[in-house]
Amino acid sequence: MSSTERKRKNTAILLMHCPDQPGIIAVITEFINVNGGNIVYLDQYVDKVNGVFYMRVEWDLENFIIPKNKIGEYFQILYAAKYNLNYSLKFSDEPQRMAIFVSKMSHCLYDILARYISGEWDVEIPVIISNHPDLADAAKQFNIPFEVIPVTRENKAEMEQKEFEILDSYNVDFIVLARYMQVLSEDFINRYPHHIINIHHSFLPAFVGAKPYHAAYERGVKLIGATSHYVTPDLDAGPIIEQDIVRVTHKDTIQDLVHKGRDLEKIVLSRAVEKHIQRKILTFDNKTIVFS
Amino acid sequence: MSSTERKRKNTAILLMHCPDQPGIIAVITEFINVNGGNIVYLDQYVDKVNGVFYMRVEWDLENFIIPKNKIGEYFQILYAAKYNLNYSLKFSDEPQRMAIFVSKMSHCLYDILARYISGEWDVEIPVIISNHPDLADAAKQFNIPFEVIPVTRENKAEMEQKEFEILDSYNVDFIVLARYMQVLSEDFINRYPHHIINIHHSFLPAFVGAKPYHAAYERGVKLIGATSHYVTPDLDAGPIIEQDIVRVTHKDTIQDLVHKGRDLEKIVLSRAVEKHIQRKILTFDNKTIVFS
Amino acid sequence: MSSTERKRKNTAILLMHCPDQPGIIAVITEFINVNGGNIVYLDQYVDKVNGVFYMRVEWDLENFIIPKNKIGEYFQILYAAKYNLNYSLKFSDEPQRMAIFVSKMSHCLYDILARYISGEWDVEIPVIISNHPDLADAAKQFNIPFEVIPVTRENKAEMEQKEFEILDSYNVDFIVLARYMQVLSEDFINRYPHHIINIHHSFLPAFVGAKPYHAAYERGVKLIGATSHYVTPDLDAGPIIEQDIVRVTHKDTIQDLVHKGRDLEKIVLSRAVEKHIQRKILTFDNKTIVFS
Amino acid sequence: MSSTERKRKNTAILLMHCPDQPGIIAVITEFINVNGGNIVYLDQYVDKVNGVFYMRVEWDLENFIIPKNKIGEYFQILYAAKYNLNYSLKFSDEPQRMAIFVSKMSHCLYDILARYISGEWDVEIPVIISNHPDLADAAKQFNIPFEVIPVTRENKAEMEQKEFEILDSYNVDFIVLARYMQVLSEDFINRYPHHIINIHHSFLPAFVGAKPYHAAYERGVKLIGATSHYVTPDLDAGPIIEQDIVRVTHKDTIQDLVHKGRDLEKIVLSRAVEKHIQRKILTFDNKTIVFS
Repeated sequence: MSSTERKRKNTAILLMHCPDQPGIIAVITEFINVNGGNIVYLDQYVDKVNGVFYMRVEWDLENFIIPKNKIGEYFQILYAAKYNLNYSLKFSDEPQRMAIFVSKMSHCLYDILARYISGEWDVEIPVIISNHPDLADAAKQFNIPFEVIPVTRENKAEMEQKEFEILDSYNVDFIVLARYMQVLSEDFINRYPHHIINIHHSFLPAFVGAKPYHAAYERGVKLIGATSHYVTPDLDAGPIIEQDIVRVTHKDTIQDLVHKGRDLEKIVLSRAVEKHIQRKILTFDNKTIVFS
Repeated sequence: MSSTERKRKNTAILLMHCPDQPGIIAVITEFINVNGGNIVYLDQYVDKVNGVFYMRVEWDLENFIIPKNKIGEYFQILYAAKYNLNYSLKFSDEPQRMAIFVSKMSHCLYDILARYISGEWDVEIPVIISNHPDLADAAKQFNIPFEVIPVTRENKAEMEQKEFEILDSYNVDFIVLARYMQVLSEDFINRYPHHIINIHHSFLPAFVGAKPYHAAYERGVKLIGATSHYVTPDLDAGPIIEQDIVRVTHKDTIQDLVHKGRDLEKIVLSRAVEKHIQRKILTFDNKTIVFS
Repeated sequence: MSSTERKRKNTAILLMHCPDQPGIIAVITEFINVNGGNIVYLDQYVDKVNGVFYMRVEWDLENFIIPKNKIGEYFQILYAAKYNLNYSLKFSDEPQRMAIFVSKMSHCLYDILARYISGEWDVEIPVIISNHPDLADAAKQFNIPFEVIPVTRENKAEMEQKEFEILDSYNVDFIVLARYMQVLSEDFINRYPHHIINIHHSFLPAFVGAKPYHAAYERGVKLIGATSHYVTPDLDAGPIIEQDIVRVTHKDTIQDLVHKGRDLEKIVLSRAVEKHIQRKILTFDNKTIVFS
Repeated sequence: MSSTERKRKNTAILLMHCPDQPGIIAVITEFINVNGGNIVYLDQYVDKVNGVFYMRVEWDLENFIIPKNKIGEYFQILYAAKYNLNYSLKFSDEPQRMAIFVSKMSHCLYDILARYISGEWDVEIPVIISNHPDLADAAKQFNIPFEVIPVTRENKAEMEQKEFEILDSYNVDFIVLARYMQVLSEDFINRYPHHIINIHHSFLPAFVGAKPYHAAYERGVKLIGATSHYVTPDLDAGPIIEQDIVRVTHKDTIQDLVHKGRDLEKIVLSRAVEKHIQRKILTFDNKTIVFS
């Protein structure tokens, strides 16, 4: 698989937020600098309304004098408690493992798999799960295990149990719903808080729920949208990661909207997945901070 | 005023819809051609779902052998009844008269007045009506009568009566609500069916009603929109004429959304008003057909 | 292959242009109507500047009384000579055969193949040709013959001869250059006039030629583009079919431009290919008329 | 004038760039923090390719212990030389003075004046200069002195001398060319390095020079653009501040392009002017860094 062939960066990635306070950037960057880390990325944002400071900083570990497995401990003791930091520390040489859930439509799946196979994304895809057998061939084309779990409203609890076993056996870190046409249970969602990415085929919050293209057609809108968001127990109401739209006219039938929407859905979903893979998303108060 | 200085086209504009039927384009275009009309614009659209045919055709009257004041009668007798046509016939040398309603914000008003004064639009603006005195100076800059009608929830019926008198005295054909912050009564709206154009500062149907930028901020959307539509008695639910969006990020405060939205609102409103002035909009079933 | 499973429409598609003249729509639509054809699509455009009339009309052949193989003859004799029509007549049950040329980059190729395999496009793809072996696996995933023709500047004439043999043996109708990094000879281009579609990674006419992202970076543009066009002997100067852009900032390195451009390239190319497949493109005077 | 009525912020704005070096953010932010400054804005960018660090930082002066008129001196001695900083220090209570140059078209001028009069921008507009008398009324509407300087190719040196006198007499800081149809002399441009903002009606570097809409029409592009940039002696080749595009089709005549382009031009120019007013633009190597 291409992702193992590429030379990986050897960097640490710190995502953090904390109450806004003077000098916090200086403290963190000095910690990195004095210990031999070379900062390759720094972006920060202050939410003045809520008084919260957010930062993503990434530094090269080559000459960093603190051993990789001790960085978390040092950071925790020296800074996290003192400054009331909420943070996560990740390493670029440990790629995340992403499961894809699909139903019958292939456009989002192929878009993801094409990026994966070409090495565009630094991610592993150990398994594809579907409630229908239709896309088994697509998975086979890319040599990825494909599991059919025929979830229905009635058997959901039992089937999700099977899904948990599969996800655990493959050490899955996060899940992408690539036009998966089943609503997940609250239990499922709570197992992966802000680690399930969905694509909804409307510019949310317009047209929540089923058949948004039909609803858009009925309303006579002049643009249709797609929204990728983290899944929360409230349907289509989780933190929005990315949205985009395409213009439509009175000439477009529902089928035309479906057709035009496909390109939108796949690109918007892939943009969101990429940001997640790059660990450039922070969530707070049902919103996302997406660093560039 | 520039609009009287320009040389006006001498054309007839037929906007029509009817049950879809074979040969209807041929019938109408032949009527125009054989009577010496030179077609300068023809656009048509068939709604296959509902079986409705729509057309806008415009022709030069210079060598048209039917006198201008007889065209309607001839068309009615020869075709309209026979083919079950719903149509309107207008002449380009009779510019429409447009009233503008405003409150305190000036950006949409200035955008409209700048187009008007430069002769970009073939329209007359006989009066500006407001529920506040704030924009009196703007009206004065452009030498347009400005009437303050301090509508409140309590005195609405009485105040609207005054507005009707003003509108009638100026022979107003249609009304533009340029960020007018009052809800019109159903009685008012029914006097001007599909002849009141509003700008709503969201991508409808998302964020109907008051304070859409606040709602957009709360929801954490990644794009904000504006929608121009004909006013109907259902709040923000009339036929959409034009929509557009602009991207926002987590960095944008509510004030930033308001600021970014201003440019969007004025451009989206002016695009819709222009289409109306050009008589390029047909409405059907709470939707618009907007010809290019 | 999905494309053989779908039920094909049984329609005739007439693409035509001629000197603008009164009543031409009426003549053509009457020909179709009186002979039992049901028009399912009609779009027309008059270039007033050059006095040229363009039309695409498509009609259902089910009750059309002229046999399919006689339509061309009848149309030619009855109308084409009389009205000086330049036209092409195609049938929707005869899908076109499209060859894809690639080099090393896979994103455009996968985007096309995903649409093909899902039955989104009514087209056959009999062969993929490349000057490098890198994408053999991708072709194999989709069971499409892959031919490596290692063209260089020196052996171009000889290698193109081989390509002609391959293209002829597969009865190829048109060619898509999906980020193919070789310039075709004039001889090659003239064999497929306006039947070779290229994707250039800039908003032409800016940044013609090699390395447009490098040039865009040097110039400091705030948006990058992609352009799909028919190939003519003048490099990157053929009729433009589709263009789009994406915003960039000072933060974007050349690698970021390459990365952001990939999505743009594939979508812009696929939009153009789709219009060609749907026979919705007319060319005139080094420009395209692209019907909606 | 509205700009004097508003309550101004009392902040210092530091725009700087220097060779990239560890800890530079920490040094600067500490300088501000320890002296009682409250940072209200900080954005930074590292150009890894050229090894240059850029930053815009703005802080509230209310409790800053260094007197306003001493900040520059302290900063210079303590940091600028030591870290090889190239910087400018400005204060938000000293609004810039902007001259507008126009010819005959009013759309950009009205867009700017509407923002100015409504207090949207913190700027003074002491004078409008034109080579034609056409827009005198527009200037008069907004009570701004209007000077006609009929520049021609032959009298340029002499006329520009007059313009210098006017600009000096009004203490003008920077100049906006709002569709001014004269090329400035190199001498003129060198007097206002990166302080003259132009709007060019194409997506540069495509269609440099005169009549870009005509050239766009000839080339058959599917989108037209507008570019605002700082003027340098090379025609249309200065640092780009902002660009945007709008879609066009084969239906659009040159007049339609001109018409569609107007909205684009005014919005793109005003976005650039706003960034300049906000002192959010740094230039380096014929490119701009535009902070958000």
